[in-house]
Amino acid sequence: MIPENLMLLKERLGAVWDIRSAGAVLGWDQETYMPSKGAATRGQQLATLSALAHRLFTEPEIGGLLERLWEASDSLSPADAKLIEVARYDYQRAIKLPESFVEEFALEQSRSYEAWVKARTESDFAQFEPSLVKMLDLLRRKADYFGYEDTPYDALLEEYERGATTAAVRAVFKELAPRQSALAARIASSPHQPELSWLEQDWPEDKQWDFTMQVVRELGYDLDAGRQDRSIHPFTTSFGSQDVRITTRLNSRLLFSGMMGSIHECGHALYEQGYDPADARTMLLDGASLGIHESQSRMWENIIGRSLPFWKHYAPILREYFPKQLDGIGPEAIYRAINHVQPSFIRVEADECTYNLHIIMRFELEVDLIEGRMQAREVPEAWNAKMKEYLGIDVPDDAHGCLQDIHWAHGYMGYFPTYALGNLYASQIVEAMGKAIPDMWEQVEEGRFAHILGWLREHIHRHGRRKLAAELIRDVAGEPLNAEPYIRYLERKYGALYGLA
Amino acid sequence: MIPENLMLLKERLGAVWDIRSAGAVLGWDQETYMPSKGAATRGQQLATLSALAHRLFTEPEIGGLLERLWEASDSLSPADAKLIEVARYDYQRAIKLPESFVEEFALEQSRSYEAWVKARTESDFAQFEPSLVKMLDLLRRKADYFGYEDTPYDALLEEYERGATTAAVRAVFKELAPRQSALAARIASSPHQPELSWLEQDWPEDKQWDFTMQVVRELGYDLDAGRQDRSIHPFTTSFGSQDVRITTRLNSRLLFSGMMGSIHECGHALYEQGYDPADARTMLLDGASLGIHESQSRMWENIIGRSLPFWKHYAPILREYFPKQLDGIGPEAIYRAINHVQPSFIRVEADECTYNLHIIMRFELEVDLIEGRMQAREVPEAWNAKMKEYLGIDVPDDAHGCLQDIHWAHGYMGYFPTYALGNLYASQIVEAMGKAIPDMWEQVEEGRFAHILGWLREHIHRHGRRKLAAELIRDVAGEPLNAEPYIRYLERKYGALYGLA
Repeated sequence: MIPENLMLLKERLGAVWDIRSAGAVLGWDQETYMPSKGAATRGQQLATLSALAHRLFTEPEIGGLLERLWEASDSLSPADAKLIEVARYDYQRAIKLPESFVEEFALEQSRSYEAWVKARTESDFAQFEPSLVKMLDLLRRKADYFGYEDTPYDALLEEYERGATTAAVRAVFKELAPRQSALAARIASSPHQPELSWLEQDWPEDKQWDFTMQVVRELGYDLDAGRQDRSIHPFTTSFGSQDVRITTRLNSRLLFSGMMGSIHECGHALYEQGYDPADARTMLLDGASLGIHESQSRMWENIIGRSLPFWKHYAPILREYFPKQLDGIGPEAIYRAINHVQPSFIRVEADECTYNLHIIMRFELEVDLIEGRMQAREVPEAWNAKMKEYLGIDVPDDAHGCLQDIHWAHGYMGYFPTYALGNLYASQIVEAMGKAIPDMWEQVEEGRFAHILGWLREHIHRHGRRKLAAELIRDVAGEPLNAEPYIRYLERKYGALYGLA
Repeated sequence: MIPENLMLLKERLGAVWDIRSAGAVLGWDQETYMPSKGAATRGQQLATLSALAHRLFTEPEIGGLLERLWEASDSLSPADAKLIEVARYDYQRAIKLPESFVEEFALEQSRSYEAWVKARTESDFAQFEPSLVKMLDLLRRKADYFGYEDTPYDALLEEYERGATTAAVRAVFKELAPRQSALAARIASSPHQPELSWLEQDWPEDKQWDFTMQVVRELGYDLDAGRQDRSIHPFTTSFGSQDVRITTRLNSRLLFSGMMGSIHECGHALYEQGYDPADARTMLLDGASLGIHESQSRMWENIIGRSLPFWKHYAPILREYFPKQLDGIGPEAIYRAINHVQPSFIRVEADECTYNLHIIMRFELEVDLIEGRMQAREVPEAWNAKMKEYLGIDVPDDAHGCLQDIHWAHGYMGYFPTYALGNLYASQIVEAMGKAIPDMWEQVEEGRFAHILGWLREHIHRHGRRKLAAELIRDVAGEPLNAEPYIRYLERKYGALYGLA
């Protein structure tokens, strides 16, 4: 009976996976090539696929199969037992939400998104406030459906970072915030500021594109199992580990914006191309958590892609694409320019030193909102106060403040912290990798990334969702989540760049 | 009860339509942008979507709703009554095929396709023969499941051209074959052959692309509700009338191949963009039949796109794209070159005068095979004999003969005739349009296509699947399917071109 049940379950899970990944193809097309008038029909197609995947996954028959196989775990292979564990976890969460609630939530997401777009365009939080009130109510109800011990925010965080708790995140952020703030303040008053005027040139997009394609290929991105296209918001998506796509956005006035974005997405894509083929068409073919996923993108973009060895290799190559513009510009000039620290209003444009501060203040606001200690209408004031406290700058208006991100409009609370966790995990991972590959930075300087990628494949990528983030990090770094390596990395790198004592 | 049942039915049909059109998006991606390694996973996704659409459409609940609404047809609006009629027709055909047969058929399609690819590469029919034997058996069983009165071929033809019969097609083809053969023979012996040497130049693909885009836009293709991309085999696909896409294949040595292909696909696309939005997410949002669909592509490609007035307008424009290459080449030279008649082995490269002969011989072979009067192994000999009889040429090998088309490998028997029917319908339609728009050709010569497109929208496109092909043609042309207008068209056009008495 067990082999038959297992086969039947895998068949059912495979069909659900196929439908979800078909939805991902439609989503990719929507952001890249879909003609504008196709939007309404596409919305319906996506809604149908998503409802269908939910319905097929939550069928009681699947629940029955999972229980029977769960009880028989001992007689399963470790790989199959893990699949049952993760599938059962997903199943139990999925059935906790009544279908009527899922629909209500989806409906409010659309409404709230529209209100947010309008409010942001007019830079007027008051127009978005009623939607945020409703969304907070829905999110609290969602947390209630899922259940939690300590705070409803735990139940939301769990959605993106299984096993993480609000208390643990708070403790790490508490350590991080003052040190990042202090570092940013010392940098601001340093006399060693980078020379940036040479960036004010025209950088033709086709050359940027070609250089970017060369870089991602050389990092190890398999372009027979992936591709790069353009979109308004860069993203990575995949339909199995053999079809992993990234997008970029190029601007002829900005040399590094699209390029570093591509390297970021390439980091996500390398992770997804590295999943174990044995996990195909199951929920194990996924990242350990959003935080771990983000560690891969941020590691390639920031720790490697904004390092001096990387630019010692790529500066001469980039000069072949832009010989006139880069005449006399060497690796050090590029290295200094792309690591320019400048407290700013917009999270997605923030540098490494200030980025986490944007996240930490959002986390604090989210927890206060979900726990009911703050009302939606108080958001702009609280936002602006925190920007002043952490980054020392005065927010001019809501569009450059509390309305800048889409996440709350979409009901994604608990998501922001994973960006900062990604930075922390990335530093822990690179420290471990540096011990395993002592000449790692020499390899980067020679443009050799295969060993690094191979190490990541072995220790992170191939495990997919078989390990929780906490388990993975402990196995890789020999310790749990820890902010110290990231702070160490920042202080060393920026201390040298800005000549801090 | 009736309004509720109708709403419920439309909801169910809408979901099925969403899944099918999601499959179409995946199919488009597969042919345009999918990286090569994505193929295996894509096959599974498509199989899942297709099985799911079939399962959801054939649920007994839908059958029950259809029967109740069918009995209550008198109380429905004419539009709704038509939907019930067509949905019930599709439903009854769908449930006639057991799921096990559908799977067996799909499996054999894949196997047979692989055998065909190999056999064609090695130009060896014997390697494909066992697959053809199996496919013929499956097709006869399919015909048995569907049921028929006269010949099993009727049941297969019905799949592509609802309401057409083998006898009626045979009668029309019988009239057509000798007259097209005779015309081709007279042309071959004419001393007035076109000058083609100027075509032997380099025609950069980017210029071809730009010209093609200009033409399809000017014909009326809405590029906010569609787009053109490249693929190995040109095709049209749509996901609703607001997202209708075409593809083309360009070759820098061939000036007209890609361009005329684009106009052909654009003809299909104009049809699909012209469906009535009221039919959205139902099976009425489709062509009346494959023959009618093909009439639209062939009308734009051949009757309009290969006309002298069309080139009187576009020759100077094309010369702007290729000023050197087209120095001294006027509309007449182009007109003569693109209407060059030359019996040849490959159907898809055939000219207007010989094209139908390729179809007629395939039809005759298919009927003989399905009715068991011919065995699979006899195909090459019969093929070559018919090529000699109709086109007067000796087939050198199987790759240039009976292995050239994919249709039999896919089990698409009954499909070929619709290409020729498309030619006949197109001439009937254009004769009717010429009466309604007496200065039609002056409009073409001035590059004005809006009136023509408007007329097609009114009389053909907006009806979608609300009319059968026979009904539509009778309404448009005032007579049933008739080969005479097409023969008249050919004899007049090519008589003048080749100076035939």
